[in-house]
Amino acid sequence: MTPADAYAELVRRSKEVALLNSCSAVLQWDQQTYMPRAGAALRGDQVALLAALAHEKATDPRTGELLAAVEGSQLVADAGSVEAANVRELRHTYDRAVKLPKRLVEELARTTTRAQEAWVGARTKNDFPAFRPWLERVLALKREEATAVQCGMRNAERGMENQKQPPDTGAGVDIPHSRFRTPHLYDALLDEYEPGATAAEVKEVFAGLSKELVPLIRAIAESSRKPDRSVLEREYPVDRQKVFAEAAAAAIGFDFTAGRLDTTAHPFCSGFGPGDCRITTRYNPRAFHEAFFGVLHEAGHGLYEQNLPAEHFGTPAGMYCSLGVHESQSRLWENQVGRSRPFWDHFFPRLKQTFPDVADVTPEAFVAAVNDVRPSFIRVEADEATYNLHIVLRFELELDLLTGALPVADLPGAWAEKFRALFGLTPPSDREGCLQDIHWSFGGFGYFPTYTLGNLYAAQFMRAARRDLGGADLDAGFRRGDFAPLRRWLNERVHQPGRRYRAGQLCLRATGEPLSPGPFVTYLREKAADLYGVC
Amino acid sequence: MTPADAYAELVRRSKEVALLNSCSAVLQWDQQTYMPRAGAALRGDQVALLAALAHEKATDPRTGELLAAVEGSQLVADAGSVEAANVRELRHTYDRAVKLPKRLVEELARTTTRAQEAWVGARTKNDFPAFRPWLERVLALKREEATAVQCGMRNAERGMENQKQPPDTGAGVDIPHSRFRTPHLYDALLDEYEPGATAAEVKEVFAGLSKELVPLIRAIAESSRKPDRSVLEREYPVDRQKVFAEAAAAAIGFDFTAGRLDTTAHPFCSGFGPGDCRITTRYNPRAFHEAFFGVLHEAGHGLYEQNLPAEHFGTPAGMYCSLGVHESQSRLWENQVGRSRPFWDHFFPRLKQTFPDVADVTPEAFVAAVNDVRPSFIRVEADEATYNLHIVLRFELELDLLTGALPVADLPGAWAEKFRALFGLTPPSDREGCLQDIHWSFGGFGYFPTYTLGNLYAAQFMRAARRDLGGADLDAGFRRGDFAPLRRWLNERVHQPGRRYRAGQLCLRATGEPLSPGPFVTYLREKAADLYGVC
Repeated sequence: MTPADAYAELVRRSKEVALLNSCSAVLQWDQQTYMPRAGAALRGDQVALLAALAHEKATDPRTGELLAAVEGSQLVADAGSVEAANVRELRHTYDRAVKLPKRLVEELARTTTRAQEAWVGARTKNDFPAFRPWLERVLALKREEATAVQCGMRNAERGMENQKQPPDTGAGVDIPHSRFRTPHLYDALLDEYEPGATAAEVKEVFAGLSKELVPLIRAIAESSRKPDRSVLEREYPVDRQKVFAEAAAAAIGFDFTAGRLDTTAHPFCSGFGPGDCRITTRYNPRAFHEAFFGVLHEAGHGLYEQNLPAEHFGTPAGMYCSLGVHESQSRLWENQVGRSRPFWDHFFPRLKQTFPDVADVTPEAFVAAVNDVRPSFIRVEADEATYNLHIVLRFELELDLLTGALPVADLPGAWAEKFRALFGLTPPSDREGCLQDIHWSFGGFGYFPTYTLGNLYAAQFMRAARRDLGGADLDAGFRRGDFAPLRRWLNERVHQPGRRYRAGQLCLRATGEPLSPGPFVTYLREKAADLYGVC
Repeated sequence: MTPADAYAELVRRSKEVALLNSCSAVLQWDQQTYMPRAGAALRGDQVALLAALAHEKATDPRTGELLAAVEGSQLVADAGSVEAANVRELRHTYDRAVKLPKRLVEELARTTTRAQEAWVGARTKNDFPAFRPWLERVLALKREEATAVQCGMRNAERGMENQKQPPDTGAGVDIPHSRFRTPHLYDALLDEYEPGATAAEVKEVFAGLSKELVPLIRAIAESSRKPDRSVLEREYPVDRQKVFAEAAAAAIGFDFTAGRLDTTAHPFCSGFGPGDCRITTRYNPRAFHEAFFGVLHEAGHGLYEQNLPAEHFGTPAGMYCSLGVHESQSRLWENQVGRSRPFWDHFFPRLKQTFPDVADVTPEAFVAAVNDVRPSFIRVEADEATYNLHIVLRFELELDLLTGALPVADLPGAWAEKFRALFGLTPPSDREGCLQDIHWSFGGFGYFPTYTLGNLYAAQFMRAARRDLGGADLDAGFRRGDFAPLRRWLNERVHQPGRRYRAGQLCLRATGEPLSPGPFVTYLREKAADLYGVC
């Protein structure tokens, strides 16, 4: 078998797995949108079968043979080529998949399904002790998973050495070279969401961020200026909200001939593949910002999915880079663009036409309201500044939970203590504390950091785009409702590369600098100065 | 391997194939309802992959080994048992599938896809010569398919002998025993839609039907009573039509917690499996009957799907008996119930409340309008009486097309000639003649007869239900909007048996008599006497 033949078969197999997963995505979207209630059991069976088939294909030893036949060949000699990137990432995924015993995969699926149910009940009843044994079981299994992945890491690294990958394809964040440090168990879990990133890197970046953020948020809290959030809580009829939000999503470039907006209990974006990306939201007739910024957020994800290189669909070169980069696209449109004054210079007159209830509101008051910074207990309701402290808190706790340094029984106390340190507030209950998120119940340790990485990447991409395109020109475009130059910049620098580079290197190539908290902090400072008179 | 083990594995494999097909059904439903336009190519790839995986599983030689291990064993000794029926039908499907060369299956898929496109263009332009070469290609492939299936028939029959099937598990329609006649090539195609039925049987039943129907329709045409159809063509706002049709579907028993009604260009019913059955319709704001009877029709299909035995989902015992029996359920609710006077005694006052435009219409005039019998050129617009002549015409033509007795080039002429003989009218164009239906372009030879078999089964089921439950009681229930007794009778006699018996035997068990055109003709005669004064 020639390397070219092996590569062609690898691609074919990768596309089959991707297609199976995209079928599952359609079924899951339908489950959230239109499926009748009684269809849940059947849907579970359908999705489980597709997942089993995809897993079987992904772990077929034939993939290992094909990878071996192409690695080290001339075909992947150029580390920057699509072929090299595909082989690198397929090796990465394959090694991870085959390192997990089938028994563990099944037990994780079974346990996390039941743990999610237990979590729903425990949160409703504010009953942490009821959730505790489930969290312990999930943690034990995730520890086992991380250990299994890490034990085989040497092999995976060897595969990458064969490709003569330059060291900078790692996450490449702005800290001393971490390739030869002792890996943290957490790395193996983080890697699933943010390939190549490590706990040590995230820790360093988050430390830099908190150091600036905590005093800034305190200063804002002490400012005498208090935006009037009630202007967002007037009468906003749902049908008009939908029309208004769809118009904004279309304006920033979400293609409705290749996508849809529907209503679900929990908003999400699901890119099935080329030509079909679905976003969802939920409407609150007395809270304009919930659906509107939710739609901008999901449309940002959607723009990424819609602008991935279709010709590489089903291979790593055609998929998103990392969850952090994905989140950067949603946060960029939701916050960097959607909460900016130039954006509202365009949309505010339209808002007034659509919703008579805001006739007396000034654009200044409105922009202040959508940028209100105020510590609160619930992550998903947090503003763009305090949000990151919620993430720092979870990241630090999950590191200690994973190593066992923090026993699950002590989680509520540790949560409250850290919350006080970061926010200066004490959560009134576990429901508004460590029981608020679903993530740990489904085993998503390593997921939370990607939210804040997304904020940091977003700010850094935006700064680079303003530098490249001229900030004043960009703002002038926004005031006219023209978002095309920014979108094109993102298409070229962020979307089209897919997973050809790891997130750290992508950031370096797109912005000229490794990831750092600087641009985000600067962005928040400028807003705080403007809206709160705080420096 | 014990027969019990083999049977358990057979069932497991059958369920996997069914689940894959049900995933495809969800994807296809989405394609017709909510999929954005640009998603078509991806959807084609997804559905093709699932179909290939299902086909691969269905033709796995392991199934043949398992069937051999269980056939002839004690487990299937009772021919009336679920086990025996499942093994009989799985053998039937397996033998058919493995007899078709992979090349032929692929060529059929490719050719019919292109032939359908050619048909769309040809129909639009009324250009039969453009479609002719495609129809010739499709016919040649279907002949090849029929020959391949028939050559192996002896094996399939042997499989059935092993189970000591009594002869009456065949279609069992009311003609001399046809088991040892020379099979018609058409039988192999008909068998896919109406398992066990033969061209000879259908021919005989249709001959009996036409003999009565042609003069009856002529007599109606000559009657001086002409219902005023224009009452159906007033203002019927679409949103109200939807509410009204949904209420009627719910009243006859369609379970909206386990199903939905959506809007599509072409109405259909798709039962994904237990707990999830979707029906669709299209609304014409100036034609009440189109959506309303369409919804009753699809809800009738849906009632069948929703009441199949869920515990046997994924095996023949849990699937519909035949397309003819499926169609009997839609026709029964659409026509036998939905166009009856007792039905409208209940719904007409509600209709008047909902649609102010019919305030001046009497129930008599309305019932006459929805029962108007009038020859027309388009099958899908035909009334319940003339509809069957459209089917007889297609059945006779496709028999001759398949054998080659009728060259494709002569189809338009033969169509026009037969149309004159049956309807006394000449189609003004091929678009209103042999180009009107999609079926032949997708290779659906043998499909058309199931529509009229459905009408005949419906009438025979209804007559038996009236006999068992008391016709006057049933009618009194309908007048109160109570359809539960009829539904329960159908659940027990028709839905719950699934495919345990072939259609002929199911009919015999449910009604005490083999299928005959008698009950349908009697039903039409009684209506004609009532509405047109014709006997």
